[in-house]
Amino acid sequence: MFEASVYTTRRAALVKALVARGVSSGLVLLLGNGESPMNYLDNTYPFRQDSSFLYFVGIAQAGLAATIDAASGEATLFGDDLGIDDIVWTGALPAIRELAAQAGIQRLKSRSELQATVAGSAAFYYPPYRAETRVELASLLGKPISAVDAGASLPLIRATIELRERKGTEEIAELEHAVATSVEMHRAAIVTARPGMKESDVMARIAQVALSATRLAFPPIATTKGATLHIHSYDRRLVAGGLFLVDAGAESPEGYSGDLTSTFPIGAKFDERQSAIYGILIETHALACGLLKPGVPYREVHFAAARSIATGLKGLGLMKGDVAEAVAAGAHTLFFPHGLGHQMGLDVHDMENYGEVWVGYDGEPKSGQFGLRSLRLAKPLLPGMVLTVEPGIYFIPQLVELWKSEGRFRDFINYEALGPWMGVGGVRNEEDWIVTDTAARRLGPAFDKSLKAIEGMRA
Amino acid sequence: MFEASVYTTRRAALVKALVARGVSSGLVLLLGNGESPMNYLDNTYPFRQDSSFLYFVGIAQAGLAATIDAASGEATLFGDDLGIDDIVWTGALPAIRELAAQAGIQRLKSRSELQATVAGSAAFYYPPYRAETRVELASLLGKPISAVDAGASLPLIRATIELRERKGTEEIAELEHAVATSVEMHRAAIVTARPGMKESDVMARIAQVALSATRLAFPPIATTKGATLHIHSYDRRLVAGGLFLVDAGAESPEGYSGDLTSTFPIGAKFDERQSAIYGILIETHALACGLLKPGVPYREVHFAAARSIATGLKGLGLMKGDVAEAVAAGAHTLFFPHGLGHQMGLDVHDMENYGEVWVGYDGEPKSGQFGLRSLRLAKPLLPGMVLTVEPGIYFIPQLVELWKSEGRFRDFINYEALGPWMGVGGVRNEEDWIVTDTAARRLGPAFDKSLKAIEGMRA
Repeated sequence: MFEASVYTTRRAALVKALVARGVSSGLVLLLGNGESPMNYLDNTYPFRQDSSFLYFVGIAQAGLAATIDAASGEATLFGDDLGIDDIVWTGALPAIRELAAQAGIQRLKSRSELQATVAGSAAFYYPPYRAETRVELASLLGKPISAVDAGASLPLIRATIELRERKGTEEIAELEHAVATSVEMHRAAIVTARPGMKESDVMARIAQVALSATRLAFPPIATTKGATLHIHSYDRRLVAGGLFLVDAGAESPEGYSGDLTSTFPIGAKFDERQSAIYGILIETHALACGLLKPGVPYREVHFAAARSIATGLKGLGLMKGDVAEAVAAGAHTLFFPHGLGHQMGLDVHDMENYGEVWVGYDGEPKSGQFGLRSLRLAKPLLPGMVLTVEPGIYFIPQLVELWKSEGRFRDFINYEALGPWMGVGGVRNEEDWIVTDTAARRLGPAFDKSLKAIEGMRA
Repeated sequence: MFEASVYTTRRAALVKALVARGVSSGLVLLLGNGESPMNYLDNTYPFRQDSSFLYFVGIAQAGLAATIDAASGEATLFGDDLGIDDIVWTGALPAIRELAAQAGIQRLKSRSELQATVAGSAAFYYPPYRAETRVELASLLGKPISAVDAGASLPLIRATIELRERKGTEEIAELEHAVATSVEMHRAAIVTARPGMKESDVMARIAQVALSATRLAFPPIATTKGATLHIHSYDRRLVAGGLFLVDAGAESPEGYSGDLTSTFPIGAKFDERQSAIYGILIETHALACGLLKPGVPYREVHFAAARSIATGLKGLGLMKGDVAEAVAAGAHTLFFPHGLGHQMGLDVHDMENYGEVWVGYDGEPKSGQFGLRSLRLAKPLLPGMVLTVEPGIYFIPQLVELWKSEGRFRDFINYEALGPWMGVGGVRNEEDWIVTDTAARRLGPAFDKSLKAIEGMRA
């Protein structure tokens, strides 16, 4: 945990931000996560605390809750000390009183008192993402389950985003830690992968590095099929000549994420077509990172990356016509069907549970266009914002087949030329950046992804 | 997946077993698991299919359900094929029709048709262990959430236990696979651990072996604090002179578990006290395994192990008085506070979600005595039953302190002699066995846990 003052300061800032949004009484409800059962109640996945709870209370232990009084700012922690049976089975834990003190909280109640405490107060809560939490909210608030999500508090959501999206010094140190471990994971994958291995061998090596240091921030992608954006199977063999794509990151001790992607040849070198596509990717990546500064809408950076990719593909004869027109129409999304990046913090897609329309769009309606609807961050950048920059270029057989059969964007896409390029599969490069007062800087230790550097590591 | 005939045979056997229990109409409801969110909806833990669904349908994919008509035996699979967006993001999956065929199911419906199909039928279901499932059952059956658990079907539970607790040939092959991977995990830990490492370094190596082959069956224990039975922190340093305890297992490709425990010195050799305790453990383990055969209540094997431990500790001057009396009174539970083992199959504690009173006790009431209430399996063994044998001997500071202060079992325990032994911490040895027609045999490849063999591996 951070110093107690970090949490008291954050809670005070929340109360102030709520007042600014017209909320000056009632209780902010922070429900910590419980254990998450795998195949029966006692066989649980590794515990992950709720990120809102972590941000305002910091205690990464199951079965807790807290309230913040929106009028007085006073916080109360709800939890219970372990009995001797628990101690025998799971070991002694710090007493609740000690945990509360570490979070700067003086008031303690038993977990069973939460219901009575909440009863009769206006309660402000975040949209639940686990059914356990939804069921508990329904019971606490006396609402039907189907009414819980709609009752989440928009002032609370917006006030919290305002706080969480500008990272503090203590958070940046954690993010640097997470990215440093993530870099180690990628370096390990790049030097480990060999033809004949299974994808799972590389994934397992990545997981080993993460688990040795801390935890995985999300299920890693480690694949010979980089053209499938979020593939989570690991059963294919590595064959020389193909590319391997890793999208993986670790958590820092306090739960902050890293999130990097690298792509490398399974043999020692990129072949000619792979080199051409990878060259466009790295150029696009550098261009996008050069545009990051406060005030610039990330949507513009996304489109600049899209135009860079389209220009490169036009140079190879795979696209044609006017690049700006092609991108405005969405033709590039055949090759770059996802967004350029997302905020990152206590969640790898930071605050995604609060709703993308607020976290990424400040309430503006989001485009429903293919490709653009996967852009998670569009709004103007702020100093202290941490985000990923992750352009990708893909040759997705099912998508090419579908669009070709529909004759979609025939003016901009040379379907006939695609054949020999389909084997490139997918390439993506992802880094984590923080917006400074004037521009932006990359988080984590040096990690050169240039074609030459990658081939150097593979040699 | 196994051959389709495996699933059709299992479903037919279930229908027959239900008829024998007086159920001859209505629908058996098999709800497959959904994804399990970690810190927001789309950041999920690795998917684990529900074990009942795996047993009768076999498809390890999220978002499916099935029904079995208790009158006709006909099965229906409820699911939906992916759209192009899903294919771009997560890759093509086999069509639902193809999956159904692999499970020997001809009737297909959309997932959205489940509600209408179930409406008006008597529905038989297992007790839910995930809130998502509980919420869905409440909605399908038009019950309040609080009434769902109590409505689980006892005839279904008992009929299913009857089938699942006697493992078939195809299951034994999977269990052998799971145990073989688990042995590799333990061997890797034993040869990896070095003074100065963190517990997480050993855990990460164990996870690497599991993930490279398949998956972890449960969160591993890898600890310098073996006296805490289910400890899941990994942040201590390994110090020469202490013991290290690993309790870890892998899943087979079809989801069957392995579950082994080993204990080894962090230095090259056990010291004198560690050797004495470890010697009692290994002797007790061999004795217990020698008693396994059809018809023997596992409670008796448990008590035989308890007497063996008490005899050994009496020999060291740590216990005193009549061993049989000490064990009958429960004095040994200071040192051996858990049960000797549990059934193992598709779940590491097999079928634990159906209720221990049926899986382990055939409906007999379970003792509430400390130690005995952690005995998960007490009933007579059957040919084909797979179980763990896992005696342990522990010196648990908080428990010793509590009992000593209460003067509990002063006639049987030499509290005054315990001091120098507390540093031994905890030792446990666990193997997986299958009951044969006449006795039992150990699953998995050779893995000698004798003191000499362990020291040999550490050298």
